[in-house]
Amino acid sequence: MDLATLLGDLRARRPAALARAISMVENGRSGFEALLAAIHPSLGRARRIGITGPPGAGKSTLTERLATRFRADGLTVAVVAVDPTSPFTGGALLGDRIRMESLALDAGVFIRSMATRGSLGGLATATREVCDVLDAGGFDRIIIETVGVGQSELDVARSVDTTVLVLVPESGDGIQTLKSGIMEIADLFVVNKADRPGADRLRQEIEVMLGIRTGNAFRHVKAHHGGGQAGRRAGGQELVDAPSSRLPASPALPAAWKHPVLGTIASRGEGIDELAIELEAHDQWLRVSGGLEQRRKRRLAQRTREVVERAARRWIWQETDAAATIERHLDDLAQGRVSPYELGAGIVADLKKGSTA
Amino acid sequence: MDLATLLGDLRARRPAALARAISMVENGRSGFEALLAAIHPSLGRARRIGITGPPGAGKSTLTERLATRFRADGLTVAVVAVDPTSPFTGGALLGDRIRMESLALDAGVFIRSMATRGSLGGLATATREVCDVLDAGGFDRIIIETVGVGQSELDVARSVDTTVLVLVPESGDGIQTLKSGIMEIADLFVVNKADRPGADRLRQEIEVMLGIRTGNAFRHVKAHHGGGQAGRRAGGQELVDAPSSRLPASPALPAAWKHPVLGTIASRGEGIDELAIELEAHDQWLRVSGGLEQRRKRRLAQRTREVVERAARRWIWQETDAAATIERHLDDLAQGRVSPYELGAGIVADLKKGSTA
Repeated sequence: MDLATLLGDLRARRPAALARAISMVENGRSGFEALLAAIHPSLGRARRIGITGPPGAGKSTLTERLATRFRADGLTVAVVAVDPTSPFTGGALLGDRIRMESLALDAGVFIRSMATRGSLGGLATATREVCDVLDAGGFDRIIIETVGVGQSELDVARSVDTTVLVLVPESGDGIQTLKSGIMEIADLFVVNKADRPGADRLRQEIEVMLGIRTGNAFRHVKAHHGGGQAGRRAGGQELVDAPSSRLPASPALPAAWKHPVLGTIASRGEGIDELAIELEAHDQWLRVSGGLEQRRKRRLAQRTREVVERAARRWIWQETDAAATIERHLDDLAQGRVSPYELGAGIVADLKKGSTA
Repeated sequence: MDLATLLGDLRARRPAALARAISMVENGRSGFEALLAAIHPSLGRARRIGITGPPGAGKSTLTERLATRFRADGLTVAVVAVDPTSPFTGGALLGDRIRMESLALDAGVFIRSMATRGSLGGLATATREVCDVLDAGGFDRIIIETVGVGQSELDVARSVDTTVLVLVPESGDGIQTLKSGIMEIADLFVVNKADRPGADRLRQEIEVMLGIRTGNAFRHVKAHHGGGQAGRRAGGQELVDAPSSRLPASPALPAAWKHPVLGTIASRGEGIDELAIELEAHDQWLRVSGGLEQRRKRRLAQRTREVVERAARRWIWQETDAAATIERHLDDLAQGRVSPYELGAGIVADLKKGSTA
């Protein structure tokens, strides 16, 4: 099938074309970049929502409920479950998929799990590219859910318009145990299993931390006007290491977004309406504040960097004799006559001379 | 401090030099590749042991006990804990470190946690490079323990001489839930918390799976002699997708290694002696069979590839105008006038022309 036909069928929302395009992109098959380039101008229709949080927080159930809610509003929904390939979570993952099967029977819902790919592509990049196909395929909402734990949470936040962080009262010793960075990427906080002991305390903890962040943003604004007092008054040392400057996913925005902290009991569907309302509010805020354009530009720059690195790896390992050079020197490496660093430097020096000669 | 002085101090096993060299390598500071190249010929003294397994399997306790055992034999020990940066495991990680503090008071023990680094270096590569420094620094045993879950288990197995997979009776629904690949990387199996219900069943399950693998290896050997019957007799379909061919960490070896399945109760120190004995046996087998040289050659080839990719990324983003080109086209990207794929292809086309012009 040629690209034009595939594109036409994808835009006509033919399920077979969607499956074919996704599989092509996921596996990096010949022509996948041409496909992604062709759909690029039409992207941005879908809203991309990330659901992240620790294992056992109820992310899958929340995702399922949220998807059902979107469907009730007449919206089509794609769910992309990202599994950063833990060899040890096969069972849990399978359970999640079975739970979501109620949704899978609905033609307006598309569910896909993404696991690790080969060496030439990263999971995060592949996930974003699959979301592009889903966007072009006409889905109104794309929910990206992290199944495992790891670097993927931060990657997901860099892939979406709105990040929802789901916590539960049982989350270890509360939010103090969360590494720096994870609180700052969230646009919405959900305390799931809100009927359990400790839920109120967790909400309060989050709100206290958000208060610190608001103080931080305030100080940041003041600093531009020559003042520094506010920051010192608001808490000093901790505020100096402003997280927003380190995280492209959550840049400082012109006006303040009041990060909602919601309580849900996803297993009973409680709090899902409020979540949907706050997601809508965040979308509106992103549009009005200019934050949406800013986030999307950052994502496009990041995507281009990923495309360059992937193409560079392809060039190095498939189009030059770098791999053969390494194989030829295996004995030298093993016997210490040359180090990987000297051999590697030689290979890169050759690359810099170009391969068109 | 110049490189020669640092090298001399490192070889003289001065703790300050070790800390300085590790920090230099971990942070990719100026001269770190020269340091790694300089120590390359002297590597291979240390034995590298990987401890991997699902969360809650007791890996840290087992590591601590094993390190204590090595110390009793008069050996020096380095422990490298690899945390693939889950933002959600801060608490558990901290707990692990506190537990290991008994070891940290011993000058013959060195403990280091490795977390995610910046974009120019990967965690797995940095971990291997730190192990090289520890090897050059004179440690007899290097234990690499994965703290979280994720791709890192497979990465760790590619970094060590011997991989120990630690499971517990509570590990979900048993080994069926483990994704393919993880069983095949293990040289030794440990059923920890062996006094709990289900321990015997887990051991039996592992042994059944090992029986299948032995059948597989047998078939592999037979195939070289023109026979194929053994494979078909031993189970057919499942054996066709031989995992060993996909996993550089565990290549087919000339003679068979009888993968031991050990029971331990790490919290009480039970079974640790047996583990140490089997680790010694595996080391002997690796040397006699030629497997050690084979594994180390594979690792050196892999390291060289990583060095090339890192240097290529440095070249692209720091020495060419690729980053500026992307920034210049942010509006074009956002407005759909150019896609990341077209822009990226242009940048790579320029790279291929070389940068020495």
